[in-house]
Amino acid sequence: MPLDEFEFSVLKTIQTHHLIFPGHKVLVALSGGMDSMSLLNILLKLRQKLNCEIFAAHLNHMIRENAIRDEQFVYSYCKKAGVKIFVERFDVPKFCADRKIGIEEGARAARYTFLNRIAHENGIDLIALAHNLNDLVETILYRIVRGTGLSGIVCMKLKDENKIRPLLYFKREQIEAYIKRNNIPYVQDETNFNLKYSRNYIRHRIVPALKLLNSDLENAFSQVHFSGMMLENHVKRLIKKYSERIFRCGKRIIFDSKDMDEFEIIELVKYCAGQMNVDLNYRQIQLVVSKLNENSWSIDLSEDIAIKKGFDFFSIEKKCKFMNILKVGKPGVYKFNDWTFELSSEVKSNEYVFIHDQGGVCIRKRKAGEKIAGVKMKDMMIDSKIPAFLRDEMPVVCTIDRIIWVPYVYVDRCFKERKEDSLVLNLLQNPYSCILELRKDERRKMV
Amino acid sequence: MPLDEFEFSVLKTIQTHHLIFPGHKVLVALSGGMDSMSLLNILLKLRQKLNCEIFAAHLNHMIRENAIRDEQFVYSYCKKAGVKIFVERFDVPKFCADRKIGIEEGARAARYTFLNRIAHENGIDLIALAHNLNDLVETILYRIVRGTGLSGIVCMKLKDENKIRPLLYFKREQIEAYIKRNNIPYVQDETNFNLKYSRNYIRHRIVPALKLLNSDLENAFSQVHFSGMMLENHVKRLIKKYSERIFRCGKRIIFDSKDMDEFEIIELVKYCAGQMNVDLNYRQIQLVVSKLNENSWSIDLSEDIAIKKGFDFFSIEKKCKFMNILKVGKPGVYKFNDWTFELSSEVKSNEYVFIHDQGGVCIRKRKAGEKIAGVKMKDMMIDSKIPAFLRDEMPVVCTIDRIIWVPYVYVDRCFKERKEDSLVLNLLQNPYSCILELRKDERRKMV
Repeated sequence: MPLDEFEFSVLKTIQTHHLIFPGHKVLVALSGGMDSMSLLNILLKLRQKLNCEIFAAHLNHMIRENAIRDEQFVYSYCKKAGVKIFVERFDVPKFCADRKIGIEEGARAARYTFLNRIAHENGIDLIALAHNLNDLVETILYRIVRGTGLSGIVCMKLKDENKIRPLLYFKREQIEAYIKRNNIPYVQDETNFNLKYSRNYIRHRIVPALKLLNSDLENAFSQVHFSGMMLENHVKRLIKKYSERIFRCGKRIIFDSKDMDEFEIIELVKYCAGQMNVDLNYRQIQLVVSKLNENSWSIDLSEDIAIKKGFDFFSIEKKCKFMNILKVGKPGVYKFNDWTFELSSEVKSNEYVFIHDQGGVCIRKRKAGEKIAGVKMKDMMIDSKIPAFLRDEMPVVCTIDRIIWVPYVYVDRCFKERKEDSLVLNLLQNPYSCILELRKDERRKMV
Repeated sequence: MPLDEFEFSVLKTIQTHHLIFPGHKVLVALSGGMDSMSLLNILLKLRQKLNCEIFAAHLNHMIRENAIRDEQFVYSYCKKAGVKIFVERFDVPKFCADRKIGIEEGARAARYTFLNRIAHENGIDLIALAHNLNDLVETILYRIVRGTGLSGIVCMKLKDENKIRPLLYFKREQIEAYIKRNNIPYVQDETNFNLKYSRNYIRHRIVPALKLLNSDLENAFSQVHFSGMMLENHVKRLIKKYSERIFRCGKRIIFDSKDMDEFEIIELVKYCAGQMNVDLNYRQIQLVVSKLNENSWSIDLSEDIAIKKGFDFFSIEKKCKFMNILKVGKPGVYKFNDWTFELSSEVKSNEYVFIHDQGGVCIRKRKAGEKIAGVKMKDMMIDSKIPAFLRDEMPVVCTIDRIIWVPYVYVDRCFKERKEDSLVLNLLQNPYSCILELRKDERRKMV
């Protein structure tokens, strides 16, 4: 049978955007509603041309009474059509009650877990979802209105890892007309439970009201979506480009923002916070932006994650306690915060001092207002380009009566010369060397 | 009198965003409505603290009957308050009829012309506009719904050249409360004539409906606006960064897109087209994006502007006729399209050939399918990295029976040696040298 106009348009979309490649196995998420039934029928009609294999999967969420009716409907439809279908039941209400999450959120999670598992177990490449342009408009509207800033705009994508949405740029009315034209049976959809009120409200009240201003509202929103997609790709590329400026050191992710603009810095902050499973909210972003020109600050992002700035460095870090003092006595390895030292008889590193006094030394944090030879330790640290967020963790190596070494900041020359019986305190590992080496040329020369 | 809370918040906004500097003269655009009357009163109260001078300006648009009442109201109010006010009348209906433009568009243009002129004539630094957060929400909604993509989001700014909007982040209800609290008189606003229906529709129908989804709709939209502002600054910085890749050659603006992403290319295309007074619409942007991976193409942007791609170069150009053939006889200067040659007795350029035949030569465009020594001219041009959009303008220098020179592509060695009586054809100027030199290393060596 030749393709009708709608099927042909879907084929064009699949080809232009490279959604399906020859040999692909495609799993249609089949609720039994109009959209997914259309998608299944269209893909079945295109499968020869696309040279792909079509499967279906249906999860009975066990929420609504007629869920069994839907399950039986899609099962027998696929049997008749000769399509292999995977059907499972999952007690979503129980799952959500156990986890204290909303029914929509739980259903969504269960569905995607199910689809991904079926795909994985059966060597299936792609999961085809039946979202249409109206879903897209409604979702963008919902997200903008609820307050997600620009990031809310990129909510559904034609292709998103193993998920494809071949109907995303088609209107609901086109799909309905296709269903009618071809006498395709369907059931009422079972999705969007909790969101139902908002969704239906947007669909039946807001969208028609907006259409009085622009009857082609869908087109207006696909513009926004299209710009949003390009922007998202740009941000991905930006982060890739700047990846060599991102350092993972212990409990921190630090990046060097030198010469970046506001937009770039905020995207990097969001990316690094994301790596720590934190989403910044709008107030936090505004706060960070308002402080971009200030030198040293700290903002809590969550109970245990903070963002700190020092010079051009931003550190997104887990809060934790620092060590205050560590006694160094016998030869051996010593850990002070993230710094590793070894006291031994040999020089084993580029960074070391000789310990003449068998009375031993200690490694401690700096003290408030502390001075070395009349110069404030704080000023020495500033001159040495130690970011503020590192200063309280820096190891200060002392004998009983004097500071002999603060790596990258100060060293007492007397302790750079070997004496008889001297031991060597080697700095073996320092997770911040990447940061501290970076600005070496800018450091004021120490006397 | 001490500042009240609202006045203090406005002061903070002015200070945080550096809207007004000491010594500035500020002109309040005073319609007489609630917003502008508030703004005037607040600025008068802050003028000592800000150390600035306040003026007012009112344009009677001569549209509504009570325009005269408004004019008299603001005039006498300012007289009483001791504020210098500039009042003028302008026949907007006639102006719009003459120009066949909408009344809102015409009123807006007339108003801004008036305000800028008054500012210029009186050495005034800033024009203060009274737009509020609700205006912002309504404008963003209107623009997204009407279809402007992301660029619609950045519609009003706190500071935009000489315009400032100190009330932009305050809600209408805050302004109303301020007016009431202080018994400030006002008239009904005279703006938004044609837009009135849409404006009022959004204000009274759409916004209240959306507020059922999120009562703090203003905050949600200020997030979008905030992200949009950062993005706009990022784009400005991007264009500045890439400015050395943008070349103005004759009727063309060409940029080198090597290693740019889609987003960056589209922003540069929009920028360059903007320099030629063309705004790309959504369809055109989509078309350009869909062809980014193709090598050579041309798309009309308007009646007389086209965008063309050749290799990594994009050319935004005025359409015009090319010269087909030019006879070169006596010594002198010859112009062929944008290329300048001189026939003389001396070598005056790095690029030249000797003309031995007094019968003269001609410069012409290439012919379809033309070959030189068995090799297609087209292939030679491709190998020489001549972008497709330049190929039909390239000068082909011929004697009566052969091609002797195609700059950057081919030269017949016989004509590189001087003979007795030879004249020299020098290439004096070539507007595309910047482009053609750029890829010199990539050009395949010609025999």
